Amino acid sequence: MFEAIELGHKVSKAEFAEAEVELRTRLLAVQRELRRAEVPVVILVNGVEGAGKSEVTNRLSAWLDTRGLVTHTFWSETDEERESPGHWRFWKRLPARGQIAVFFGSWYTYPIVERAFERMDEHVFLRAMNRINDLERLLTLDGMLVIKLWFHLSKDDQEKRLNKLAKDNGRGKGGRRPTPWEKTFTKRYDVFAQVAESAIRATDSGASPWHLIESKSRRHRDLCAGRVILAACEARVAEAWTTRVRDATSNTEPAQDDSVFPASQRTILDTVDLTATISDEDYRSQLAKYQRRLGAAVWDAWGRGIASVVVFEGWDAAGKGGAIRRLTAAMDARLFRVVAVGAPTDEERAFHYLWRFWKHVPRDGYLRIFDRSWYGRVLVERVEGFATPAEWRRAYREITHFEGQLTEHGVVVTKLWLHLSQDEQLRRFEERQQTPWKQFKITDEDWRNRDKWDAYAAAVGDMVARTSTADAPWIIIPGNDKRLARVEVVKAVTKRLEAALAKS
Amino acid sequence: MFEAIELGHKVSKAEFAEAEVELRTRLLAVQRELRRAEVPVVILVNGVEGAGKSEVTNRLSAWLDTRGLVTHTFWSETDEERESPGHWRFWKRLPARGQIAVFFGSWYTYPIVERAFERMDEHVFLRAMNRINDLERLLTLDGMLVIKLWFHLSKDDQEKRLNKLAKDNGRGKGGRRPTPWEKTFTKRYDVFAQVAESAIRATDSGASPWHLIESKSRRHRDLCAGRVILAACEARVAEAWTTRVRDATSNTEPAQDDSVFPASQRTILDTVDLTATISDEDYRSQLAKYQRRLGAAVWDAWGRGIASVVVFEGWDAAGKGGAIRRLTAAMDARLFRVVAVGAPTDEERAFHYLWRFWKHVPRDGYLRIFDRSWYGRVLVERVEGFATPAEWRRAYREITHFEGQLTEHGVVVTKLWLHLSQDEQLRRFEERQQTPWKQFKITDEDWRNRDKWDAYAAAVGDMVARTSTADAPWIIIPGNDKRLARVEVVKAVTKRLEAALAKS
Repeated sequence: MFEAIELGHKVSKAEFAEAEVELRTRLLAVQRELRRAEVPVVILVNGVEGAGKSEVTNRLSAWLDTRGLVTHTFWSETDEERESPGHWRFWKRLPARGQIAVFFGSWYTYPIVERAFERMDEHVFLRAMNRINDLERLLTLDGMLVIKLWFHLSKDDQEKRLNKLAKDNGRGKGGRRPTPWEKTFTKRYDVFAQVAESAIRATDSGASPWHLIESKSRRHRDLCAGRVILAACEARVAEAWTTRVRDATSNTEPAQDDSVFPASQRTILDTVDLTATISDEDYRSQLAKYQRRLGAAVWDAWGRGIASVVVFEGWDAAGKGGAIRRLTAAMDARLFRVVAVGAPTDEERAFHYLWRFWKHVPRDGYLRIFDRSWYGRVLVERVEGFATPAEWRRAYREITHFEGQLTEHGVVVTKLWLHLSQDEQLRRFEERQQTPWKQFKITDEDWRNRDKWDAYAAAVGDMVARTSTADAPWIIIPGNDKRLARVEVVKAVTKRLEAALAKS
Repeated sequence: MFEAIELGHKVSKAEFAEAEVELRTRLLAVQRELRRAEVPVVILVNGVEGAGKSEVTNRLSAWLDTRGLVTHTFWSETDEERESPGHWRFWKRLPARGQIAVFFGSWYTYPIVERAFERMDEHVFLRAMNRINDLERLLTLDGMLVIKLWFHLSKDDQEKRLNKLAKDNGRGKGGRRPTPWEKTFTKRYDVFAQVAESAIRATDSGASPWHLIESKSRRHRDLCAGRVILAACEARVAEAWTTRVRDATSNTEPAQDDSVFPASQRTILDTVDLTATISDEDYRSQLAKYQRRLGAAVWDAWGRGIASVVVFEGWDAAGKGGAIRRLTAAMDARLFRVVAVGAPTDEERAFHYLWRFWKHVPRDGYLRIFDRSWYGRVLVERVEGFATPAEWRRAYREITHFEGQLTEHGVVVTKLWLHLSQDEQLRRFEERQQTPWKQFKITDEDWRNRDKWDAYAAAVGDMVARTSTADAPWIIIPGNDKRLARVEVVKAVTKRLEAALAKS
């Protein structure tokens, strides 16, 4: 594959100067258009060592308007990054709508390097490529322009460049010294080329294609990179103005309601036994028992570096708050945090909807409780029409992809749906209006949601069916008896965590 | 000091239950009021080991509405935190306006622990207390309510508690095991008490007083904490409604314009020789020379873990962009980032104005360039009236406090003012309107700013006079000859960095 671009292109100084004027002018113009169209752009700078990725990155900062442009390098990990799952470090740095981010090194770097040094098995590498495909698909469907550049240099040319760098040893232009890893990379040129080629083939999609750039001549390389970026941006702007991408994608999806459980049919919720209760004495002893076990398990998990995510979803007034308090009462405040999820802020709206949840993914050893979660996409956003059908339909896959990265990293994911009958909900709404410190909990919105019970029930049925995976199944908690629900919640979280500890 | 509160208070179960109802109701009410008044609240949970800080923290989460409440613990540092200066980790987690943050452990923890273990000299400890006073002053003046709780336990009681914890070894309520450090703390009870007392005395200010809480009885402790918080919040809400704090503080400051350099007088800017130029040949050779040295110095600084901050301020069209490009061309893209500072976003406006700059402070070994900076507070915000006189006047001290924390940590701070004559600015404005890729750089605002030249000149004079410190002086760059300015910028940054490397 790479030989095909080893053409020895050269560009004279004069040609470059002339071409640069036009390129810069148009790049700045398209950058403004992208901002106006609120298109986020990420440019991935990848390639062989010595190809001049740093120089290209600098050139791009010089050509583009630095307002609205940010450069991120991925090479020296913090311990927090090492201890966080999957693509966490990249999500943190994705550009907001209308912004451009240049990633020097990217989600490709780690799997390619690890595979080339044979520290990663082939099946793990292929799974990583699948994860990348899912990520890029998710981003482009959300409107992001993903430009992937691969800077290539032949084996001979790489050797020459790196030898010169070693000879200059900091006295050449740029004052840079060769880094230890560059030497090791040269020795493995062929293996690297092979791994890179398979990575490129596995991820060269229509929505985010790869661009190979010959890097022997510096001026050719930079012009080439600039032109590829310009062409991609101009095409994207044209598209943005003719049809808004969101609408465009929703048109390609079936229009009819294809929920697994139509509203009129029984869903998994109808199979829950809501008549079960618990005696006073059992409540006290069971709760104390599981709280004690949970407290110990959470410390244990901290010691062994196992993180947990506990997701709470459920009907309004199903007792999420009370259950969460029983959970947290058992744990040391240093080891957990509760994330209360409300409507997204303006800043959060400027990103893919999963962005704000990635921010809260716990590092190794810690537990995070989500009081409502990313499932809002397929519940309230679906029912209230805040997300288009295309958006919430593809959210099932996006969510399992997200949770898959957590469980792959070893995070224990526990998802709880607190269930309740319609009658019991009414009783609690009325009770809340009587109790001084509960009045604030009941709003007009709660009454409106109640009117849409059937639509929500269908959405819940779909959600449970489509996102219950082996590693992250939904657990339905019968909630008509509040105290039983609390015991069941503490028990469920304890048992999931203990099982993970037993396996570790 | 502490003996005074060892009174053996007890609260019966019935008393507690009754008091709790009222406390919860009022806490929830005041939390809503605080949100409406947009008051940020930070509650610092400090105290001796074994006093139950974790239990109190949990209790507070149970009492308050978790929407708008977040708990942060400061005990296990990430390497990024260790490698970042001063109060960076706390700034990152401050509550936005209308939010409540509970800090379990705080800016007091590290200095108290280090001093008690005699790993910190007394003068360093006292300087840390001064930094804390400055921080709390800055936050409270900006409208934040800082509630400082110290949970106390007598030596005997602490020993009993920790012995019980050791005996239970995870089988007691909460499942917690004693941590290794708890044992070492007990042995040093007296030293700790002494250090804590001096910390409390040194930082017990009118705006953010300390509250000592006897923690022998759990119920008494929790009620007491709840009541202290309630009283502070209710007082703050009352104050917020009678007078807005910002107005109130501005009334206490002198009304007349007391700039060091009144607009009519000469400022430091008038002493700059703007006639200097550089020849073609000198430009090329000097630029190449310093770029080479800078490139090497930046790699060196990376190797030795020395961070740099380069601040660019200057007149519109003074050539900041071009100078920054000459600077970045010399450096490896992995080692630096340019932060382009524009108007604050809505999210940023919800914090103290320094918050958004703390976010961008580099970790050890990296360099960050600020294209405009925190000095906006005393330049554009002062001249345009976006900040009240009280706000921009106290900003000088807040800024030197901020930069002092950077230099104390070893960050090399280089501040550059790019100067220009009024005539030359006019010439460049007109030229920009002719050049295709520069047109976007010139807006109506630039022309409006130009009309306020004298007011800006006075503000710049004040800024230079009041914020040039020994460790972070202002460097004025003559900018009428663009190329000379570029050489001077690269030279200045190189020399500052080389000097720091020579000393390290």
